[in-house]
Amino acid sequence: MNSTYLQMFSTVTEAGELRLELLEKPMPQPTSSQVLVRIEATPINPSDQGAMFGMADISAAETSGSGKGTLLTAPVSAGGLRVMKARMGQTLAVGNEGAGTVVATGDSDLAKSLAGKVVAAMGGAMYGQYRCVEAAACLPLQTGHTAKDGASCFVNPLSALCMIETMKLEGHTALVHTAAASNLGQMLVRICQSDGVQLVNIVRKADQVKLLQEMGAKYVVNSSSENFMAELTDAIHATGATLGFDATGGGLLASNILSCMEAAAARTPGAYSIYGSVKHKQVYIYGGLDTSATTLNRGYGMAWGVGGWLLPNFLARAGMDVAGRLRARVAKELKSSFASHYTNELSLVEALQADTVRQYYAKHTGEKFLICPQK
Amino acid sequence: MNSTYLQMFSTVTEAGELRLELLEKPMPQPTSSQVLVRIEATPINPSDQGAMFGMADISAAETSGSGKGTLLTAPVSAGGLRVMKARMGQTLAVGNEGAGTVVATGDSDLAKSLAGKVVAAMGGAMYGQYRCVEAAACLPLQTGHTAKDGASCFVNPLSALCMIETMKLEGHTALVHTAAASNLGQMLVRICQSDGVQLVNIVRKADQVKLLQEMGAKYVVNSSSENFMAELTDAIHATGATLGFDATGGGLLASNILSCMEAAAARTPGAYSIYGSVKHKQVYIYGGLDTSATTLNRGYGMAWGVGGWLLPNFLARAGMDVAGRLRARVAKELKSSFASHYTNELSLVEALQADTVRQYYAKHTGEKFLICPQK
Repeated sequence: MNSTYLQMFSTVTEAGELRLELLEKPMPQPTSSQVLVRIEATPINPSDQGAMFGMADISAAETSGSGKGTLLTAPVSAGGLRVMKARMGQTLAVGNEGAGTVVATGDSDLAKSLAGKVVAAMGGAMYGQYRCVEAAACLPLQTGHTAKDGASCFVNPLSALCMIETMKLEGHTALVHTAAASNLGQMLVRICQSDGVQLVNIVRKADQVKLLQEMGAKYVVNSSSENFMAELTDAIHATGATLGFDATGGGLLASNILSCMEAAAARTPGAYSIYGSVKHKQVYIYGGLDTSATTLNRGYGMAWGVGGWLLPNFLARAGMDVAGRLRARVAKELKSSFASHYTNELSLVEALQADTVRQYYAKHTGEKFLICPQK
Repeated sequence: MNSTYLQMFSTVTEAGELRLELLEKPMPQPTSSQVLVRIEATPINPSDQGAMFGMADISAAETSGSGKGTLLTAPVSAGGLRVMKARMGQTLAVGNEGAGTVVATGDSDLAKSLAGKVVAAMGGAMYGQYRCVEAAACLPLQTGHTAKDGASCFVNPLSALCMIETMKLEGHTALVHTAAASNLGQMLVRICQSDGVQLVNIVRKADQVKLLQEMGAKYVVNSSSENFMAELTDAIHATGATLGFDATGGGLLASNILSCMEAAAARTPGAYSIYGSVKHKQVYIYGGLDTSATTLNRGYGMAWGVGGWLLPNFLARAGMDVAGRLRARVAKELKSSFASHYTNELSLVEALQADTVRQYYAKHTGEKFLICPQK
């Protein structure tokens, strides 16, 4: 085995420059409870790109150098630097999840049991050729499943499953989801179907409506429709949804979902209350596809909430048993409910080319890129 | 006893008119578990004015008629009518809380035990000369305390106490409060002092800073200061506050509080996380002094929430035991921690005069009006 390996790091400098580059690191040795994974496939999720690119202006990104000397740079505005203050000057490892083959193990029984197996793992620093991880944190894939099959085992599948867990934990009975034609959105459609959970899908385009309807989704609302608010209210009334997950974050969408939940609640006969409906209505923002400010018009009484939602925080709250149950389900349904499709496969060097970066940075619905660090 | 009494009602008509008027109602008879209270003092809280005035344009309000035929009218815009749709055409009783003398009782032991006593009650329809209420919902005042002393027993005192209860229930250890020079804000200063809870007060004016400092408040920040964000961050860092209560609702204030909480958290040594600090940061909006939209810039990671907060909803969540404990404390500290001061005392007819309405509708900090329905 080599004595070094390449890994991707991101730095925001005090001079206002983002630097994304490959650094040569000494090959790590697994401790007793760890395994060394040769990373073979690791996806570029929207949630990875915050750490990769900070608040840099990617339209002005440039690539210099070649091979392991490849460097992507991009300017960061003064406003971006203020927000990025806590990370300034730090060289951050990037990449949340990935999969590959266990090529060395520690001497614990669990670690040794994974020797030679294909496993998936989440935990950061995955955009590299090798990664030491705790054996207990690995998800062994079923026989016949490849690293590419399992590369996106965690972020999207667990997020979709944890949306349903959040729904149950917080006493709701149906869901609203935005950017619903995304990779994650399609998983959510499939698992809501098999679990009998009513789901209202919000998309922006007619072809996305068609895509989800062809998958069997019952409630699909197009936010570009001029009757969007009325159609969303009808769907919310039909399903009883009082919980939404919003991937976009900015603008009026979260507020509009709450308005429609309130309008749907007002259709249920009962005394008028000046303080609005009593049932708590919640929208969690789990992404930032729209980086503009969130605007809440508050025309929905007093029993409402909007907040950030982050998978690791929710898993910590739900506890180990829930996490274990959900991981087992992902492994079992990896090529059905949780299948991912990739637009392109990139080497570590290709992932630093400015034109390629601009392509995946655009986060077009349904597009997803995979890094294959051994390529 | 008279066979009828006068009570204030509010209606928003389909034609776009707000009507606030007195109606003559038959004197109610208490059931077995009820008492009949002669209402002698009932405050006009900001939270009453939503039901009283809907979304009407009070600058254009007019009063016609006189005596019990007095009628206040004001135009409601098309936008206001959309928001008020659920109440349109309904004649709503107004006034959340009040106090007075029990003049008749049902035959239950509890009801009979209140005969002749001065009690406070919350439950709506208080802007009238009489009100039947459940004996169990009454708070008997201590000997020597008058109806005027007890008129504001519930909304402000219980809100202030329940802010501290919310803090404990949700795992926070200090508070931020806006519009902190208000009647409620001053109560909160007093009870935080006696309970040893650290409190960051946000006010808008230098004389309000002085007022709270003279009361002994340690952290008072002026949002009109050009160093507001830095000063607020310092105060939040010193107190460890991760929970705020905002009476204003509109604009950037809630978002700015979250930004300062995040900046304060970033001062604590620890690894940088691209997803922000892990401790949940929450701002509850409990009023709408600023009716403009709430703008959230989301520059504070993923562990944050903003939501509506309503006293009855919180009391329902906290349970009967907590409510009983808090009510007992209010009765005990009625003339110390929970003393209210009134700008003016109005008869029911005076409360319908357009110029007077504009005065209390302005909700100037520290101004509070009392209706004395027997006047």
